[in-house]
Amino acid sequence: MKFSPLLDSLIRELQILPGVGPKSAQRMAFQLLERERKRGLQLGQTLQRALTEIGHCQHCRTFTENTLCDICANPKRAENGQLCIVETPADVAAIEQTHLYSGRYFVLMGHLSPLDGIGPKELGLDQLDNLLKNGDWQEVILATNPTIEGDATAFYIASMAKQYQIKVTRIAHGVPVGGELELVDGTTLSHSLSGRRPLE
Amino acid sequence: MKFSPLLDSLIRELQILPGVGPKSAQRMAFQLLERERKRGLQLGQTLQRALTEIGHCQHCRTFTENTLCDICANPKRAENGQLCIVETPADVAAIEQTHLYSGRYFVLMGHLSPLDGIGPKELGLDQLDNLLKNGDWQEVILATNPTIEGDATAFYIASMAKQYQIKVTRIAHGVPVGGELELVDGTTLSHSLSGRRPLE
Repeated sequence: MKFSPLLDSLIRELQILPGVGPKSAQRMAFQLLERERKRGLQLGQTLQRALTEIGHCQHCRTFTENTLCDICANPKRAENGQLCIVETPADVAAIEQTHLYSGRYFVLMGHLSPLDGIGPKELGLDQLDNLLKNGDWQEVILATNPTIEGDATAFYIASMAKQYQIKVTRIAHGVPVGGELELVDGTTLSHSLSGRRPLE
Repeated sequence: MKFSPLLDSLIRELQILPGVGPKSAQRMAFQLLERERKRGLQLGQTLQRALTEIGHCQHCRTFTENTLCDICANPKRAENGQLCIVETPADVAAIEQTHLYSGRYFVLMGHLSPLDGIGPKELGLDQLDNLLKNGDWQEVILATNPTIEGDATAFYIASMAKQYQIKVTRIAHGVPVGGELELVDGTTLSHSLSGRRPLE
């Protein structure tokens, strides 16, 4: 024990945050105690409220403290019949920032990974199946990550959607805009080549 | 607003922690929500308890939730009449880890910095003066940081201690053990030269 018991607990518990080791936890605790008591108390409260109240949207499974998230609660987002499948709520935020998509989302909260015990059930694919069966969908856009697991998950969901004769697309993978060809890895470059499109 | 209001507040408030920007705050919030709800709730509670209950030790000004810290409450630590002056509670922890010091501490919680409005009063030097006047001290060890402000603070406290005919020492500055001469900066090397000692 290096400090008083309560200070020791605070430093130890701050280390549950990702990327925070003993040294940064100590720095955080001291900074809060020296300069940020009021805002730190507020953070403690918010932490407790958020972890108690935030659950999953009943439609799309993203994080929200309400029954439906803002996007699912907005009838305009259902108009074009597009459903975008992503792995995490952060992916929703990233796609929303492009301002190019106005359909709905379904958030898997992960990807298929049988070795870690994550199968279709853990990703809510039964719920997705219901959604696909009962909705009026024009297109399912697969925006899972371009990793082995993300690709496998995409193929799995594609076969589900095809059962209901829904058009399925996958977001394009290739050379990032502003990137240089010689710095791009081989797999990305081959994706980029095989996914080439006619210049119109 | 990218997420639900409560999740947004959590992500914003996590950014009061030093070294945490929007991206890491988002990662922290998601990790807590997905995998660490129970320990996160505990962290919220500890945060509130710590920021409400932890104050300063009445003797040495370090952080503690009690009236006296463990070191000041231990009569054995007063036996050799040594008083070590440091800038922060983390410095106390660092010196304690050497297991070479068995005296008491006085924690300034900063250093003299007139431009930032930190003068003798903010560092509790009136309290230190009382301590020096009324205690039975054999030696005051100045362990402030080897910076301009730390040195100035050390000189200021040295002159206070000399009023009461107490021996004053400063910790040695020089080449770190395991360091290589050619990689050490010039100022450190000149400290190291001027502070040379006869080999006995």
